[in-house]
Amino acid sequence: MDSMTLKLGQVQLMVGRDKAENLRRACVLIRRAAEQGAQLVMLPEMFCCPYENEMFRPNSEEQGGPAQQALSALSRELGIWIVGGTIPEREGERLYNTCYVYDDQGRQAARHRKIHLFDVNVEGGQYFMESDTFAPGNDITLLDTPWGRLGLCVCFDLRFEELCRVMTLRGARMILAPAAFNMTTGPAHWELLLRQRAVDNQLFTVGTAPARDESGSYVAWGHSMVCEPWGGIVHQCGTGEEVAVTELELSRIDAIRRQLPILSARRTDLYEVR
Amino acid sequence: MDSMTLKLGQVQLMVGRDKAENLRRACVLIRRAAEQGAQLVMLPEMFCCPYENEMFRPNSEEQGGPAQQALSALSRELGIWIVGGTIPEREGERLYNTCYVYDDQGRQAARHRKIHLFDVNVEGGQYFMESDTFAPGNDITLLDTPWGRLGLCVCFDLRFEELCRVMTLRGARMILAPAAFNMTTGPAHWELLLRQRAVDNQLFTVGTAPARDESGSYVAWGHSMVCEPWGGIVHQCGTGEEVAVTELELSRIDAIRRQLPILSARRTDLYEVR
Repeated sequence: MDSMTLKLGQVQLMVGRDKAENLRRACVLIRRAAEQGAQLVMLPEMFCCPYENEMFRPNSEEQGGPAQQALSALSRELGIWIVGGTIPEREGERLYNTCYVYDDQGRQAARHRKIHLFDVNVEGGQYFMESDTFAPGNDITLLDTPWGRLGLCVCFDLRFEELCRVMTLRGARMILAPAAFNMTTGPAHWELLLRQRAVDNQLFTVGTAPARDESGSYVAWGHSMVCEPWGGIVHQCGTGEEVAVTELELSRIDAIRRQLPILSARRTDLYEVR
Repeated sequence: MDSMTLKLGQVQLMVGRDKAENLRRACVLIRRAAEQGAQLVMLPEMFCCPYENEMFRPNSEEQGGPAQQALSALSRELGIWIVGGTIPEREGERLYNTCYVYDDQGRQAARHRKIHLFDVNVEGGQYFMESDTFAPGNDITLLDTPWGRLGLCVCFDLRFEELCRVMTLRGARMILAPAAFNMTTGPAHWELLLRQRAVDNQLFTVGTAPARDESGSYVAWGHSMVCEPWGGIVHQCGTGEEVAVTELELSRIDAIRRQLPILSARRTDLYEVR
């Protein structure tokens, strides 16, 4: 029987240029969330180095590297789950934009390598070619927790509705997305996207972003947020560094699915997603 | 070669209890849109009778009935396309919630029977069981026009993301939805849904609703709107009767699809919708 409430912590970290310092600061803020009762704490995408192509390889680590060890040890010590944002993961010559999840015993519960790389060129707006540095992951990632099944997206993954739908059809009750939208896509799409994925799939969506650093070459939008299955915003951060702890009423998922039948009324005789 | 701009007319009709009067008024307002240069004019869901289960059968008509004849004749006379909202269509004993489309010669260009019937029971909000009266349609409807391929949804159909995605993958550049959201689902989801379908599928979405009649048993939200492929609102009506004429820059579709690759970057090795 899954627990019906989750106290969720989000760390909207101000990410600097020193990996050890970012990691230390992340751990301080995770502790702060745990002190406020958080049972699962989430970090943003690229929490231990700036989101810049030339920063990824120097700050990368292999399976079992220092950032992973620190988060694993902390989750065991605090007895909480940690969704460890993302770090540049190195395997041989390849780099991946990878989210590691640790359970309350410090065991690695999941590893999600970003599937859809962020290659965009918006006229008068953001340019970024993530595939210059990273290789894409090739697996859809779901994991079971005391609060039900979770699906993982890393940032741009969230834009692909089929991925979220497939995770929902495979039992996801929450979609967690460490992310770093920017000053072009953030105001245009961040809130809209998290809200509509919640409405379409009738589950909770959680996006955790870094704090905004105007001096960076890639300026993050911030605004980490939690949406509930009716599309309402449970909590939305501002742009600065912030620890948010929010209580999610998970019974809301089944209530909404009963009242407004979307998932059950799909016409799979006319279309289907797999 | 498709035209690169469309002058679109929307008639947010105040629907009363007299079918002949509703039809007459709809024709007056279609003329008004055409006078303002509209090349395609759209009516709302159930434009010729109130949205109440007991009104549907008495106001229904068979293929070739009076509402269809009037719209066909008007489209030929004015030399414009008409997306005729919906009427209760009768075939034998069955009723369908049906959208007829006429081209600028008055020929029937499409017939879309609402696929997903509106059966909801929101706690403290809207109750409606459309399947008490209607049978569901069984076809996905696309049609070719001088402005590219259009996909049709009737209201609740729009909530099923796979339907919109399939239409997009089959070439739709615009999704038109005669609709009648209510005072529960309207404020919660109407704008969100039209915007996000536009962003996800990188096309124009158009929702045309009846004007709000507070005295009806089902109170429509109004707010007919047009969204462009970046999710921006091109136009949104208020709640009263209104004729809106909006110019759509269709080149925006390819521009957005190029700048932010969603459709082309889908990982069909990991998921697919058909």
